[in-house]
Amino acid sequence: MKTIFAEIISIGDELLIGQVVNTNATWMAQVLNQAGITVVEVTTVRDDRQSIWNAVSTAMSRVDIVLTTGGLGPTKDDITKGVLCDYFHTRLVEDLRVRAHVHALYKNRPEVLNTLTATQWMVPSHATILPNRVGSAPIMVFDQVESRKSKVEGHGHILISMPGVPHEMKIAMNEQVLPYLTERLELSADIIHRNVVVYGIPESTLALKIEKWEKNLPKSMHLAYLPKQGVVRLRLSSYGEATAEQIDKQIADLLPLIQENVIATEDVTPNMVLGKWLTESKQTIATAESCTGGRLAALLNEQSGSSAYYMGSVIAYDNSVKQHVLGVKADTLATDGAVSEACVRQMAEGVRKLLHTDFAIATSGIAGPTGGSEEKPVGTVWIAWASAEGTTAECCHFSGDRAQITQNAAMAAIGKFLLQQIAKKQ
Amino acid sequence: MKTIFAEIISIGDELLIGQVVNTNATWMAQVLNQAGITVVEVTTVRDDRQSIWNAVSTAMSRVDIVLTTGGLGPTKDDITKGVLCDYFHTRLVEDLRVRAHVHALYKNRPEVLNTLTATQWMVPSHATILPNRVGSAPIMVFDQVESRKSKVEGHGHILISMPGVPHEMKIAMNEQVLPYLTERLELSADIIHRNVVVYGIPESTLALKIEKWEKNLPKSMHLAYLPKQGVVRLRLSSYGEATAEQIDKQIADLLPLIQENVIATEDVTPNMVLGKWLTESKQTIATAESCTGGRLAALLNEQSGSSAYYMGSVIAYDNSVKQHVLGVKADTLATDGAVSEACVRQMAEGVRKLLHTDFAIATSGIAGPTGGSEEKPVGTVWIAWASAEGTTAECCHFSGDRAQITQNAAMAAIGKFLLQQIAKKQ
Repeated sequence: MKTIFAEIISIGDELLIGQVVNTNATWMAQVLNQAGITVVEVTTVRDDRQSIWNAVSTAMSRVDIVLTTGGLGPTKDDITKGVLCDYFHTRLVEDLRVRAHVHALYKNRPEVLNTLTATQWMVPSHATILPNRVGSAPIMVFDQVESRKSKVEGHGHILISMPGVPHEMKIAMNEQVLPYLTERLELSADIIHRNVVVYGIPESTLALKIEKWEKNLPKSMHLAYLPKQGVVRLRLSSYGEATAEQIDKQIADLLPLIQENVIATEDVTPNMVLGKWLTESKQTIATAESCTGGRLAALLNEQSGSSAYYMGSVIAYDNSVKQHVLGVKADTLATDGAVSEACVRQMAEGVRKLLHTDFAIATSGIAGPTGGSEEKPVGTVWIAWASAEGTTAECCHFSGDRAQITQNAAMAAIGKFLLQQIAKKQ
Repeated sequence: MKTIFAEIISIGDELLIGQVVNTNATWMAQVLNQAGITVVEVTTVRDDRQSIWNAVSTAMSRVDIVLTTGGLGPTKDDITKGVLCDYFHTRLVEDLRVRAHVHALYKNRPEVLNTLTATQWMVPSHATILPNRVGSAPIMVFDQVESRKSKVEGHGHILISMPGVPHEMKIAMNEQVLPYLTERLELSADIIHRNVVVYGIPESTLALKIEKWEKNLPKSMHLAYLPKQGVVRLRLSSYGEATAEQIDKQIADLLPLIQENVIATEDVTPNMVLGKWLTESKQTIATAESCTGGRLAALLNEQSGSSAYYMGSVIAYDNSVKQHVLGVKADTLATDGAVSEACVRQMAEGVRKLLHTDFAIATSGIAGPTGGSEEKPVGTVWIAWASAEGTTAECCHFSGDRAQITQNAAMAAIGKFLLQQIAKKQ
């Protein structure tokens, strides 16, 4: 299959003064990549005519698909639609379907249907308009070779302009843009992805462990390492050249090489794996947190449906809470300190008893930047896991700033718990 | 003062497959903007020679300062240094200071000092090398008019290449790059920023409220609205044309117009304001959370030093925890439900008593996407604030997805608490 190249143009002053992080481009790159489209560049420009024009012109000259977000609101700083109209030598006409949609959207807020909003149903006469189910700005497709009904050949044939509001953009991508591109470029049928999620092994060690297997992969399959917070997702993909059976055969060969570290064979996070397992086995969990300060709890209740297994937590930031709510002995705090094996064990057992859960996880460490010592440097985190079978504990070391240390410690508390469950089964 | 234009080039395959969010560019844009440098474009390219070359070449032709991050590691996919060497017609030479620094950096890990790492102390002979205090890749400055010792005139005169590791980049920017640019471009002396942080008023309402004041601002001052999670930061800046007294006079005129919503007159977050106030007044706080699930606790302990005022929290996700740990009446849960005024009041009072704090905040709501009803739709969150003076509660409504609702509710719990304290003082 011919490689389809895409470029994303993010439009908006707020992106260039550092006020808003461009998560749109990241999300779009991810789903385009999954759909077999290679993103070669992301360009972020201001709400400025010349900047938008230059970015569009450059992108159209070098890639097949150009996706723009932003600059489609009704106020005067939103100029994307006008610039695109001029660039594609077309003009604005009223679209009755968009007009009806916007009226329906604001039926309970008639004050919004003012002259500014009325610009939203003016659309370029030479563009294909796709509906924006949740917002007023329509999605505009400038398809240069629409009549051909064939795969894109050559360069710069399709530009799609979407709203920049993340929620609207995601719905637009999923419900309109990806289906449009899939049909238009005949992308879909043959793309196969298989995911293997691995925890507790550095990327470089993992690469050495599966080196031979990776080297022998057929050319029809592509392997990607996707590391994040100690988790590595291996994604094996075929874009039309291998069968599902052939890919599954490779995955079956891979798994035994890394079996003690595999926490999932689908595209999920460790907390999703844990949540699913607890839900299915009708077991419950609680946490007692010091340094992670609620971040472990937040991971456990990130998913809808978490109330089935997640009971609650005690954030025992101050030692008095460790002692009086969780029952950590005053002796332990005085002798071993709060960042110690004895303390986290008692925290885990204490919260498990208090909240009547099957499992409990506890953390206590030094998040920094202050509070470290030679013996217990910043990044030292003790983690304990308690169940009816007993309690285990481990001393971990994390690097980075305060936010990274606490986030990575929270992820490790779940990841290492999953590895323990896997070891038990094997 | 002449406007200095900059462009950021972010280099790395991981940014274009959607694996990593480009937070570097956002952070850099923010600090550059504060320093009076206007970022006109962010370009994200792959670890690919032609892509890097094109981006550098285009950027050098249109801006004064080009900042690149990424592609400086020791492995073969890191090619930025080589491409820049060729682009600037220079060659690599050994730098003994960098060599000594890298040896010191890895003194406890001699296995890292291999042939790959040795490439880190090879630097372009025509570049100024600034030290990377926390990493092995040096910061390279290609300053085209260094000898002139004057302000940059014309375009494309300075390119600075930094590592892409966020932690290393931030230290490099703060300790090396910004001081270098400040001296080189004679930036510093005249830039004045004043911040006013406002909570509890939508941006558009705020704009109307201060419309007259804003219209009468002298041309020497620039006002920016920086909204985030219900907080709006107003930043009034002068780049060399107004005095501190003139700006302070304008701020003094502004404050009475919005006094009931001003939570700070410096660049801080609501949780920083709260933390400072509690530290100074030697008071303590705790939280009892249902729907926010630890996110409010995490905000309260985000800052180093939070152990002075933040005691801990009970995340009462399950009703049994609300009842047995926090003392919410079974009656209340049966009659009013968990998302009710009566429930959050008892939660706040319960955790305040349990953890012996001066203040307590409680949340209970429907984070979605499931669990909503006509009476209590998704996004409904009850928040209560308890102190020795009594307890208050408010029903709030948030929009967005599960993550946005819980984050905004956590921020509101702090923001609205601050507004209450302000109202008391007035």
